[in-house]
Amino acid sequence: MQLNKDQELITGINTVMSILKERPRSIDVLYIKDTNRNQRLEQLLYFAEKKRINIDKKDSLFFKKQFSEEKHQGVAIKCNKRTEENENFLHNLVEKKKTLFLLLLDGITDPHNVGACLRSAAAAEVDAVIVPKNRACHLTSTVRKVSLGGAELIPFVVVINLTRTIEWLQIKGVKIIGTSVSTTNVYSNANLKGSIGFVIGSEQKGLRRLVEKNCDELISIPMSEKMESLNASVTAGIVLFEYLKQNNLPNL
Amino acid sequence: MQLNKDQELITGINTVMSILKERPRSIDVLYIKDTNRNQRLEQLLYFAEKKRINIDKKDSLFFKKQFSEEKHQGVAIKCNKRTEENENFLHNLVEKKKTLFLLLLDGITDPHNVGACLRSAAAAEVDAVIVPKNRACHLTSTVRKVSLGGAELIPFVVVINLTRTIEWLQIKGVKIIGTSVSTTNVYSNANLKGSIGFVIGSEQKGLRRLVEKNCDELISIPMSEKMESLNASVTAGIVLFEYLKQNNLPNL
Repeated sequence: MQLNKDQELITGINTVMSILKERPRSIDVLYIKDTNRNQRLEQLLYFAEKKRINIDKKDSLFFKKQFSEEKHQGVAIKCNKRTEENENFLHNLVEKKKTLFLLLLDGITDPHNVGACLRSAAAAEVDAVIVPKNRACHLTSTVRKVSLGGAELIPFVVVINLTRTIEWLQIKGVKIIGTSVSTTNVYSNANLKGSIGFVIGSEQKGLRRLVEKNCDELISIPMSEKMESLNASVTAGIVLFEYLKQNNLPNL
Repeated sequence: MQLNKDQELITGINTVMSILKERPRSIDVLYIKDTNRNQRLEQLLYFAEKKRINIDKKDSLFFKKQFSEEKHQGVAIKCNKRTEENENFLHNLVEKKKTLFLLLLDGITDPHNVGACLRSAAAAEVDAVIVPKNRACHLTSTVRKVSLGGAELIPFVVVINLTRTIEWLQIKGVKIIGTSVSTTNVYSNANLKGSIGFVIGSEQKGLRRLVEKNCDELISIPMSEKMESLNASVTAGIVLFEYLKQNNLPNL
C-alpha cells in the first residue's frame, strides 16, 4: 500500500469511529472486511457511507498481511496525519474549557516512551499533551505507531519554553503537579481535583531542576526500592487514572 | 564484552544492590565507575567488596559505549540469568507466605509486553508472575532487557495449565481477579485486600473464556471509548498500585 509522507494507517473500530466523527475529511480511504462483519462494524460502515467516505472492501488476507501485529478488528483507514499544535492552540483551549486536564512531558526523548504516554493520555482523555521544542521527541512515525491512534485523538502541543508555559498555565488557574522521586507526598493522598497539568520527566533524569522548582506540588508513586523507576507511560497511567477517579470521570 | 548464553548484564544502583543482597553468587563481575563515585555508589562498592565480588573499575567511556540507552548510574553486573520457576515454587510460596500478591498473564505473546509487565510487577513487589506454558511468551532475552532488572527480582513461574493453577490457588485462599472490558465493576470500587492474584489478558484478545469464567471477580478500568485498550503493563501498573494503596503497602 502506498502512503505519502503526510499519511498514516490507523486500525481498530473505536479509534476509526472517533476519527470518522471528529475529522472525516482527513480520511483518504476506509478499508473494511468484505464478509463476516459484526454489528459494530456494520454500524461503522453505515456511518462511513453516510459521511461519503471512500470505502474499499478487503478480504481477511489483506488485513492479516497489512496489520498482523495490530488489533485491527477488520477495519483501517488511510488518513492525513494530525499535525502538531503550538501555543495558539493552548490559548484557545484555555479560553474554551473551564476545567483543564493536561499532561506535560519534560525531556522525554525516546519515541517509544512518548508514544506510550500518548496512548495512556488518550485512554484517560486528557485535553492535550504538551512537550518542549528542544531536547524532546515530537510526533515522529514511531510515536504515532506506538500511540495506537492516540496521536490522532489527542492534541500534541509543542511549546518554545516549557517553564514559561507552566508559568502561563498557573496564571490561568491550572495547578501544575510534577511526579518526582524526591518527595514523600504520595500521589493518592494529594488533592487532584479541578484544573491540573501533570508533569512527567524522563526515566533517566526525572524533571529538570527549573521545571521541578516551578511546580505547585510534587507527588510520588511509592514503589519497590529494588527497581530504579516505573516506565513513563505507566507513571502517566497511574496518575492520570487517579485524577479520573478523584474527579468522578468518566462516570465512575 | 563476552556473555555466554546463561549470562546477562544488569545496570542501575538499586537493582544491582538487590542482586548483591539476594543472590551474590550469581554475579560473575561487577563493573563500577573508576572516578567521581557518589555516596550511594561508594556504599555499593563497599558492600560488594565485603561480599568478595569480582570488581572491575571502568572509565565513563566504557559505560557510555556499553549502556548508552540505559540508566546505568555508573554500575553494572555480568551475572547468571535467573531461571524460570515451576509449580513446585508456587507450592513452597503458598506454604511460606500468609498473604499472596500475584500477577497472572493470560496469553500475552509479545515479549515487550511481558517485559514491561514484569517491570511494573517488580516495582509493585508482587510475589510472583505466573504464565502458562503454551501460547505465551516466557523469559526471553527481550523480556529480560525490557524488564530492566525485573526479571532478576521477581520469580517468573511457568505452569502447565493456567486454569488448573487458578483453581488450586483459589483452594489455597487466593482470590482471583481478572481485568476485563466486559464488566462495569470499576477496579477502584472493588475490595482488593488480602491474598489476590490479578489476571491480565492480551491487548488483542483479553482473557480467554475459560480463564475469565474461573475468576472470582472481574474488574475494569473505565477509559475513553475512543481508544481500544490500555497497554498491558499500564493496566498492570494501575491495578497493582491500587492493590498497594488498599493494603497500605509499601508504607503508604
